Amino acid sequence: MILQPLVDIAEICARKKVSEVILSPGSRCAPLTLAFSRHPAIRVRTISDERSAAFIGVGMAQMSGAPVALVCTSGSAALNYAPAVAEAFFLQVPLLLLTADRPPEWIDQQDGQTIRQSHVYGKHVKKSFDLPVDYSHPDASWQINRIINEAINLSRCDPPGPVHINVPIREPFYPEEHESINYSRDVRIIDQHFPPNLITKPLKKTLFQKFRSYQKILIVAGQGKYDAAFVDMLRSFAVAWHIPVVADIISNCQLPDIGIKHQDAFLGIDNEELLSKLAPNLLISFGKSVISKQLKLFLRKYRAVEHWHIQPGGEVADTFQSLTDIFQLTPSVFFKTLQTVTQPELEEQHTFLNEWKAIDRMVEQSCSRQFSDGDFSEFSATKTVLEALPADSILHLANSMPVRYANYLGIQDQTIAVFANRGTSGIDGSVSTAIGCALSTDKLVTLITGDMAFFYDRNAFWNHYLPANLRVIILNNHGGGIFGLIKGPDRQPELEERFETYQPLRAENLCKEFDIEYARCQDFPSLREKISGFFNMENGAKILEIETEKAINKKFFTNFKHTINNIYGN
Amino acid sequence: MILQPLVDIAEICARKKVSEVILSPGSRCAPLTLAFSRHPAIRVRTISDERSAAFIGVGMAQMSGAPVALVCTSGSAALNYAPAVAEAFFLQVPLLLLTADRPPEWIDQQDGQTIRQSHVYGKHVKKSFDLPVDYSHPDASWQINRIINEAINLSRCDPPGPVHINVPIREPFYPEEHESINYSRDVRIIDQHFPPNLITKPLKKTLFQKFRSYQKILIVAGQGKYDAAFVDMLRSFAVAWHIPVVADIISNCQLPDIGIKHQDAFLGIDNEELLSKLAPNLLISFGKSVISKQLKLFLRKYRAVEHWHIQPGGEVADTFQSLTDIFQLTPSVFFKTLQTVTQPELEEQHTFLNEWKAIDRMVEQSCSRQFSDGDFSEFSATKTVLEALPADSILHLANSMPVRYANYLGIQDQTIAVFANRGTSGIDGSVSTAIGCALSTDKLVTLITGDMAFFYDRNAFWNHYLPANLRVIILNNHGGGIFGLIKGPDRQPELEERFETYQPLRAENLCKEFDIEYARCQDFPSLREKISGFFNMENGAKILEIETEKAINKKFFTNFKHTINNIYGN
Repeated sequence: MILQPLVDIAEICARKKVSEVILSPGSRCAPLTLAFSRHPAIRVRTISDERSAAFIGVGMAQMSGAPVALVCTSGSAALNYAPAVAEAFFLQVPLLLLTADRPPEWIDQQDGQTIRQSHVYGKHVKKSFDLPVDYSHPDASWQINRIINEAINLSRCDPPGPVHINVPIREPFYPEEHESINYSRDVRIIDQHFPPNLITKPLKKTLFQKFRSYQKILIVAGQGKYDAAFVDMLRSFAVAWHIPVVADIISNCQLPDIGIKHQDAFLGIDNEELLSKLAPNLLISFGKSVISKQLKLFLRKYRAVEHWHIQPGGEVADTFQSLTDIFQLTPSVFFKTLQTVTQPELEEQHTFLNEWKAIDRMVEQSCSRQFSDGDFSEFSATKTVLEALPADSILHLANSMPVRYANYLGIQDQTIAVFANRGTSGIDGSVSTAIGCALSTDKLVTLITGDMAFFYDRNAFWNHYLPANLRVIILNNHGGGIFGLIKGPDRQPELEERFETYQPLRAENLCKEFDIEYARCQDFPSLREKISGFFNMENGAKILEIETEKAINKKFFTNFKHTINNIYGN
Repeated sequence: MILQPLVDIAEICARKKVSEVILSPGSRCAPLTLAFSRHPAIRVRTISDERSAAFIGVGMAQMSGAPVALVCTSGSAALNYAPAVAEAFFLQVPLLLLTADRPPEWIDQQDGQTIRQSHVYGKHVKKSFDLPVDYSHPDASWQINRIINEAINLSRCDPPGPVHINVPIREPFYPEEHESINYSRDVRIIDQHFPPNLITKPLKKTLFQKFRSYQKILIVAGQGKYDAAFVDMLRSFAVAWHIPVVADIISNCQLPDIGIKHQDAFLGIDNEELLSKLAPNLLISFGKSVISKQLKLFLRKYRAVEHWHIQPGGEVADTFQSLTDIFQLTPSVFFKTLQTVTQPELEEQHTFLNEWKAIDRMVEQSCSRQFSDGDFSEFSATKTVLEALPADSILHLANSMPVRYANYLGIQDQTIAVFANRGTSGIDGSVSTAIGCALSTDKLVTLITGDMAFFYDRNAFWNHYLPANLRVIILNNHGGGIFGLIKGPDRQPELEERFETYQPLRAENLCKEFDIEYARCQDFPSLREKISGFFNMENGAKILEIETEKAINKKFFTNFKHTINNIYGN
C-alpha cells in the first residue's frame, strides 16, 4: 500500500533542502526508507548501528549547516539515537529525527519492537511531534504537511537543534507489485522568515554610552564555527580597541596579535596579585561552551561589573556567574555596530591588554622549551601533530584529553577549522561525528582521539561510507589516562581499576578488519617519519596510532603545570 | 570530602541484597564508585561502554532475579543506558540506575558533561528520583535513605523493573588524604511486604463456576523464567483437564504430551475449516510477550468468549483483543487453585486437545523430514545446534531470526532455560545480555545470534569479564537476512542495500582481538565436527561462526512454509 502523506515527507524535505538522509534498517520504517531512497534529489546512506548513525548525522549537519534527517524503525532503535540527540541539542546542530512507531492503539500491548516513543527524547529536542496514523480525513495530510514544514523550520531557527517526529504506521505499508511511489507535485511549502538581526536605535544609544564608559574590557569567544570574515572583523575591532580576545581552540577565533590562547595553562596559577590585574570590568562573550576550566573559575572569582552575552537564540546561560545583558544578535552584527563608537582615551585598556598578552606570550615560550626538550608523551605528540596539520583542513578533537591538550597548545594556522563534541562533552560519538564531517566536505578531516573514545565508538567504521579524506590519530595510553592527570582520582587506590580502566587494544586489528591504512609509533623519530605523508590526499582513510606510557604522560603534564607555576606562582 | 549520605547508599544496597554493581568510569560519580568499590559485601565490575554495561546488568539481574545497580557519570553516559533501560522495563527486570549529575544550579549553564538528566528515561522506568544536593539539614540524609529504600523495593515488586536515581553532586567529592570511607552502622532499612498472593473465597466461587462451564479451553504461556516446580504442576493440571498448552520457546513451558510448540508454523495456514476447530472458548494466558505472530493473528481473529490473563503485576495488555479478566496472582497460585475444581464431562475438551495435538505432531514430523534431507541453511544449522545443547544449560536467543528459528523448532530438553530480549525485541544488546547472564551462573550459557546483532553489540567483549562459561553461535549471512524472508521488503529493489545491508565481517578478527577461541563452518560435516566438544566446560569462552548463503536460507525457509501449507492449506 502506498501511504501518500509519508511519501510526500521526502518531497517536502527535498524542496526545503534537507537532502541528506541516514537510514537504519527496519521494517516499520519501510515507507520512509523507500520514499527517501527513491527520491532523485535526496542522498541516502544506510548505517546499522543507530548510535553511530546519529553521531554521523551530527557531524554532517554541523559541517554543512543544513539539517540531516535520520530514519529508524520502532523500538529501542530510537533510544540508540539518544546520546547524539543530546549532543546535537547542546551543540545546536539541526537534525530531523523520524522514528517509525507502532500505531498508538498497539502501545503497551506486549507486541514486538514497541516502546513508549512519543516524546522519547524528553528535554533534548526543540520539539516533539506525533504524526497521525489514520489518513482517511483530509485534515491528516494537512497536519502531516504542516508538521514536517514546522519541524524543518524549527530545526534551523536560532538556536538550531534536533526536532523529533514520531511516525506511527499501520500495516500494510509495503507497496504492492502493481504500485509505484510518486511524489505529489503540489506539496505545500511553508517558509519561516527569521526576525531581522538588527540593533534598534534606542538600544544602540545605551550600548554605545555603556561601552565607552568601560576600561578593562575582555572578550571571550565560546565554541563556534570557523568564519573567516567574522574573524577578520573581530580582529580589527579588537586591535582598534586594545581588547584581549580570550579564545579556546574550539572557538575558531584564536586571533594573531590580539588573541589569548593559553588561558587554561596560566589562569590556574597561585598569584592573586597578577590575576587581579587580569580581571575585566566589562566582559563580552559570544558562542557556545568554553573548554577552559581555569578561565571559568577565574571569571567566576573575578566577576566583571557587567557581562554581556551575544547570541541570536536568546538562551540564558550564566556561565561566569556575572551575566547582566543578553543581546539577541549575531556576534557579527554586534561587533560591526560597536565599530562605529567614538573612541575615548584607552590607556588603561591598553595596559590591560598588555598584561594579558605578556603572560600569554611568556607561557607560549616556556612551553616551547619544555616541548622541544621533553620526553615523548601524548601531550608533546599532540603538539607535533597539530604543527603538521595541513592548511585549510579540518580538525576534530575527541573528548576528553585530546581536546584539552590541543586547547593548552592553541592553533597557529587560522585556516584550520576546529570541531569537538562539546555539547555534552561525551566520549561516545567522536569517531562517528568526525566521519560525518568528512562525508560533508572535500577537505581533509583529522580526528585526534584517545583510545577510550576510539574503541567506544568503533562501530563508526561499520558501514560502507569510510571517507577517503579521513585521518585518525589515536593517542593510545591503554585506558582513561585523564584520571591519572586530575586531582582526586590520582590519589585513590582504585585509580587504575575503577577510573583509568586499563584496556589492552591497539587499533591495528580494527584497521585490518575495515581495510584502513595503519601505522604506529612510540617515539619522536617514528612519529615524525610517519606523520610526513600521512596527510597526503592520495589513497584512502588512514589511522596513525601513537602509543605512550601513562607514567611519562603524567610526568610531562605535571612538569608543564609546574613550569608555569614556577614562573608566576607565589 | 566524604559525602556520608552517598557512602551509605552502598551500605543500604548491601543490606538489601543488592550486591552486584556495574560501574562505568567517570569523575562526577566518584563518591559512588568509591563507596561501592570499598564495600566488602558488594562486587563491582567496571565496564566502559555504558550501552553494553547496562545490557550486561539486564542479563545479570534477569538471571539472578536480584536488582543490579548501575553507576555512571553525568552527561551522555546516562543516555547510553537508555536502550537497556527500556529492555529491562518491558522485560520486567530489576535495575537500579544511579546517574551522577551536576548540581541543579549548574544545569543549562554551558558547563561540560551536563545534560537535563532529571527524569531522563521518561516512561521507561518505574519511577525516577532526584536526590538532594545539599546535606546540611538532617532531612537530606533522611530523604536519601528513604529514596534508596523505596527505589530498591520498587525495582523488586511486581512487575519488577528499572528505577532511576539521579544523584547531583557538588565538588569537592574525592576523599582527602586524611579521610577514609566508613559506612554508617545504623542505616535504616525499610522492607516492603507484598500483598498476599491469594484468591479470595467469593472470587474462587465465581471462578470455579465459570471455569467448569467452558469447553475448548486453551492455555497460552508468554515469556517467563524457567521454573521446574511450576512446569510440573501446570503439566499435571493440563493433562487432567485435557487442555492444550501453547507455548513459545521463551515461555520455558514447552510441555511434553500436552504442549503445543509449532504454532508459529501451522497457524498461518490457509484453511479456515481446520483453524476454526482450534478456536478456544476460554483462553487462559500468563507471562509476558509472545513471539509467534501467527498465534497472535489467530487468536485475534478467532476470539475467545473470555480471555483471562494471569499475572501478579496487574498491568493491562490486551494482546489478543479479547481480554475479559485480569487475575492479579502468580500463575502458580492460580492453577493450584483450579486444580481443586470438580471436573465436568470433558468430551468436547478432549476432542479439542486432540485437534491441536494432531496438527502439532504432524508439523513436527514433516519438519524433521525436511531438515534431515535439506540444504545447509541457518535454519537447519539452528536445529543441529539446539539438539547438541547440553542438558541443564542456558540458551540466549538474539533477535531477530535466531529467536524465530528456535521458536519454529521448539526445545526438547526441559532442563534448558531459554532467554531472549523480547522486552523491546531489539538487536542492540543481545551479546551483552548473554554475557551478563553468564556472569551470574555457573551453568553453560549459549547465545545464538545473527551477524548484525553480534557486530552491533561487539563492545560487549570490551571489558575484563569474559565469562568462561559463554558460548556464542553466530549465524552469519552477512547482513540482515530477515528482510529477504519476510513479505514486503523481499519485493523491493532496495532489498539488499537498504534493508539487508550487506556487511562483510566475520568474527575471526574480533576473536583474535579479544583472545576468544574461534571456529567457523560452512556445511553440515564441519558443523557436526565443530559442535562436538564446543560445549565442553573446559577452557574459556568460545565462538562458533556458521556461515550461510542468503539464497539458500531463503529457499529452505520458503520450503518449510510451503511444506506445511501443502499438507493443510486449501
